[in-house]
Formats: sequence, C-alpha cells, structure tokens
Amino acid sequence: MSEAIGFIGIGAMGQPIASRLIDAGHRVSVYNRTASKAAALVEQGARLADSPADAVEPGGIAITMLANDEAVEAVTLGDEGLLTKLGNGTHVSMSTISPDCAQRLAARHAAQGGHYVAAPVFGRPDAAAAGKLWIVLAGGAAVKQRITPLFEAVSQGVYDYGEEPHAANVVKLAGNFLIASAMEAMAEAFTLAEKNGVDRQHMATMFGETLFACPIYKNYGAMIAEQRYSPPGFTLDLGFKDMDLVRQASAKAQAPMPFVSALLNRMLALRARGQGGLDWSAVGRGVSEDAGTA
Amino acid sequence: MSEAIGFIGIGAMGQPIASRLIDAGHRVSVYNRTASKAAALVEQGARLADSPADAVEPGGIAITMLANDEAVEAVTLGDEGLLTKLGNGTHVSMSTISPDCAQRLAARHAAQGGHYVAAPVFGRPDAAAAGKLWIVLAGGAAVKQRITPLFEAVSQGVYDYGEEPHAANVVKLAGNFLIASAMEAMAEAFTLAEKNGVDRQHMATMFGETLFACPIYKNYGAMIAEQRYSPPGFTLDLGFKDMDLVRQASAKAQAPMPFVSALLNRMLALRARGQGGLDWSAVGRGVSEDAGTA
Repeated sequence: MSEAIGFIGIGAMGQPIASRLIDAGHRVSVYNRTASKAAALVEQGARLADSPADAVEPGGIAITMLANDEAVEAVTLGDEGLLTKLGNGTHVSMSTISPDCAQRLAARHAAQGGHYVAAPVFGRPDAAAAGKLWIVLAGGAAVKQRITPLFEAVSQGVYDYGEEPHAANVVKLAGNFLIASAMEAMAEAFTLAEKNGVDRQHMATMFGETLFACPIYKNYGAMIAEQRYSPPGFTLDLGFKDMDLVRQASAKAQAPMPFVSALLNRMLALRARGQGGLDWSAVGRGVSEDAGTA
Repeated sequence: MSEAIGFIGIGAMGQPIASRLIDAGHRVSVYNRTASKAAALVEQGARLADSPADAVEPGGIAITMLANDEAVEAVTLGDEGLLTKLGNGTHVSMSTISPDCAQRLAARHAAQGGHYVAAPVFGRPDAAAAGKLWIVLAGGAAVKQRITPLFEAVSQGVYDYGEEPHAANVVKLAGNFLIASAMEAMAEAFTLAEKNGVDRQHMATMFGETLFACPIYKNYGAMIAEQRYSPPGFTLDLGFKDMDLVRQASAKAQAPMPFVSALLNRMLALRARGQGGLDWSAVGRGVSEDAGTA
C-alpha cells in the first residue's frame, strides 16, 4: 500500500533510504535543515517541506534519520516539530539514539494518541542504496504491522524486539559496540603480527576466509590491514558518540563493560589529534600510532 | 606418499589428528606421557613408543601437539627427546607455543641438520575429528613441500606465512586473541541488553545471521547467550596461557594491546574463583558476575 511519508534527515543514510521509498511508489515529503541536500530527491519526485511539521500529515507516517538525540528531539518537539501535526500517526525513528531519548519520545507521542516505533538500522550508505539494510524493530504490534511493508524497499531483514521501543536502540548500540570491538581487536592483532614480520593483509584475508568469514571482519579487516581510513563511510566522531551512549546505558543498567572504556579512550585520543573526520575504522590508526608504525 | 610419523601428545587435539593420519595410511608411532591415552590409537594400528626418541626415525617426521612451551621443549630436548634421534628429519610443531620457543627449537634442529616447521591449527576437537582444521604454516620451503600432503588428512585449508617458523605462532596467538576479544565483546553486549529486557539468545541469533555470520560468533555466541560453559572444548586455563603469551609477544614487539590487558584480568579473576576448568567462553560468566546476573 502506498503511504504518505514525511522523511526528515537527508544525510548519508537518509538520502538512499528516502530514494528507495520514492522508487517503491510512496508519496514522500522531505525536510532537511540544509534544504539543498534534498535537491536530488525533489527531482526524483519528492515534495520539499519547509519544516518538520510541514512534511507530515495528521495520522500519517514520519520517518526520522538524524545524527543524535538532540537532532531527533528538535525535529519532533520543536515549535514546528512533527509532533505538532502528526496526531495519532506513527513516528518511525531510524536514528541511533539513546534508549532514554526513545523512552521520552515514545511517551510524548502516546500522550497525544500517537505512536513511536524504533527502527535503527545496520548497514552503511551503500547497503542502504542497495536495499540491504538490517532493521532492528521495536514498538506497538499494530503500528509495526502498518509500517513493515515500508521496510521491504530498504532492508534484507527485520528483527523484532517486542513492544518497548528503547529495546531496539539498546540492540543497535550493542551492535555498534561489537563492531568497534572487532575493529580494535583486529588492529591490535594485525599490528602485533606486523611487528613480527607478518603481512597485515595476508592475515586479514586468512581470518576473513576462515574463523571470521563475515562482512564486518572482511570489510573492516581489509580497511584496517591497508590502513585506508578515508573517505569515511561512518565517521569516528559519530562512532565516539555511539560509544558514549553505550557507556551511559552501561552505567544506567549497572552492566560493567571494560571494552567500552578502552574504546572511548582510543577514540578520544584520535579526536584530540584532529582525526574525528576519518572513518571510524581509524581506531586502527590509533593502534599503529601507539606502536610507532603509523 | 606414506610417511613414518612419530606423533607425540595424545590429548584432546592430538588424538583425532593422529587417528586421521593412521586412516590416511601413514605409519604412526605414538608417545604420550600417560601411555593409557594411546590405547585407542594402538587398537587402530599405531605402534606405542616408550619415549619421544623411540617414536621417531632418523630423517623421519615428528609431530608434536602439546599444551605449552615446557611440554614441547621436554619431549624435544630431554634425555630421551626426539632431537636425540630425528637427525636431519623434520619436526612439525602443531602446539600453540610462544614465538620465542619456536625460534629456540628451530635453532636446535638446524644445528644438527634437521628442520623445524610451525603448523599450529585453528579448530576444536570436533573439527579435528572431521578433518576440518585450518593450518597456519611457516618454515623452510623444501620441508613444507614434504609435509603438506600430511595436512590433507586433517585440514580444510593451509595458510603459508613464509620461512620463519615463529611467524606462524604469532598468527596463531593473534587468532586466539581475536576469538577471546569477540567472546568478551559479545558477553558485554548481551549482558547490557539483558539488563534492558532484551533476550540474550534472540540477539545472539540475530548477530550470527547478519553482521557476524561466521563460526566464532555463531558457536561461541550461542554458548555465551545460553551461559553454557561446560563441558569445555578448550579450557579457560589454556586460554589464559595463550593470552599471557600474547602479552609477552606484545611487550617484546612493543605493540601495545589494551584489549589483552582486559582479557588477562578477566580470565585471572575467573581462575582465582576456581573456574579455570570451564570452557574459555566462560569469560561470559565473568561479565555476568560483574553485572550481578550470574
């Protein structure tokens, strides 16, 4: 069924997701703080909205894909935010945000008879463009049924974590933590081997073909082995934000996570030296710098 | 070509490897400190040797699969060690030992015109029994050519790291470090999620089907999600030994590895509480204990 969708946030991920929704026949209105970024989507048939509220219809669907808690709260709760117009519609929040923020937003929507669904994604911009994202879903059963058809256009699979939206955000943060841990571990392993005369790329290839024959180890393994940290697919600055959200969630849940502490210090040191704009696989650069081989 | 092989060390890994070599038609003599462990192999056709030297022939092949540096050095350099008889033969060392030990042993063999090849393996006992090990190989080109046919009986793939035997030991240690890091990261992620109401097993299944669809995350992920840490396939005591070898190699190479420090402390705490005999995936138990959910 064709839906009227207000799509808010046309960044590296939002752009290909919105594009695929237009291709799938949905009526999409787009809003972005920097309107010029919406030009390609408008050419493709999207309507350009001049505020988050203007992008959505009462009872309709709003999709947000933004960088952090503050941005999602601004477009939702601001004077011209989507909450002023969405009514009993559904807000599908795809951003990687804190579980706390998800709980606050869910309560605000519920208070006016609306719905909030968390649907953060795994996958980089090229996976979004190919419709190959993995979606982590949580929210009310009825609204999940309504929005699930939308995901067919952008994902290769949807995992449902029940009725509490923030559960999906915890899973997304946990996944980014697993990726960051894998990158740090590979960088340490490759650098130890390098200093013993072993070729980094030979080793990355071997592990990517054997014990760790999976996308994260193959793709990030190649980047870290070759020390190829730009252009960024996902920046270290954003990765640091996510690890800081993991740290907060860990503290709130009283779940000690020593690897998170190590990762935060790693990323903080790189940002302090002006490398926050590199791909977040640049944790490997930090390892090489520590070892004197950068 | 059928070879005369002296196989030394009939433990959880040595047993199935020796068994497959017998099945492949090689003439195998076996030695084990506790001779009774060799009974099944003798029934299968192996000759029982009463010392490491007795197991090998001058110019032949010796294979050692033992727990640590000390054990390999004892059967090689002892009064009745294989070095007293092997002459210009080849010692294939499959144990997970330190790179330093490999260098010492290679020098001793070379001094008498013999050869030392490092061939540590990835895979647990069931993989050995199925002939599905991965072999990490390093040593002189001519002897590697001689022994490679032996590996067809036990492995699904051989990766060659050149002429310096200790390089293979570094790669093996680095691989065990990657596995231990993945286990710690999964345990931290699952426990964070659990304390937020998310089912550990649902999450392990999802990551094992998506970002981390590879043996280590699938198999250890299931064990850690279910908190199933016995019977052990590879004990925490042995895992600790390996992480300590990684630490030593890291210090010698001046390659800082913060994750190794975290893993050593994790494993040390579990051993201090009498849990060294559990499977090494019990790092997950340590994470749960810290979080008050064990």
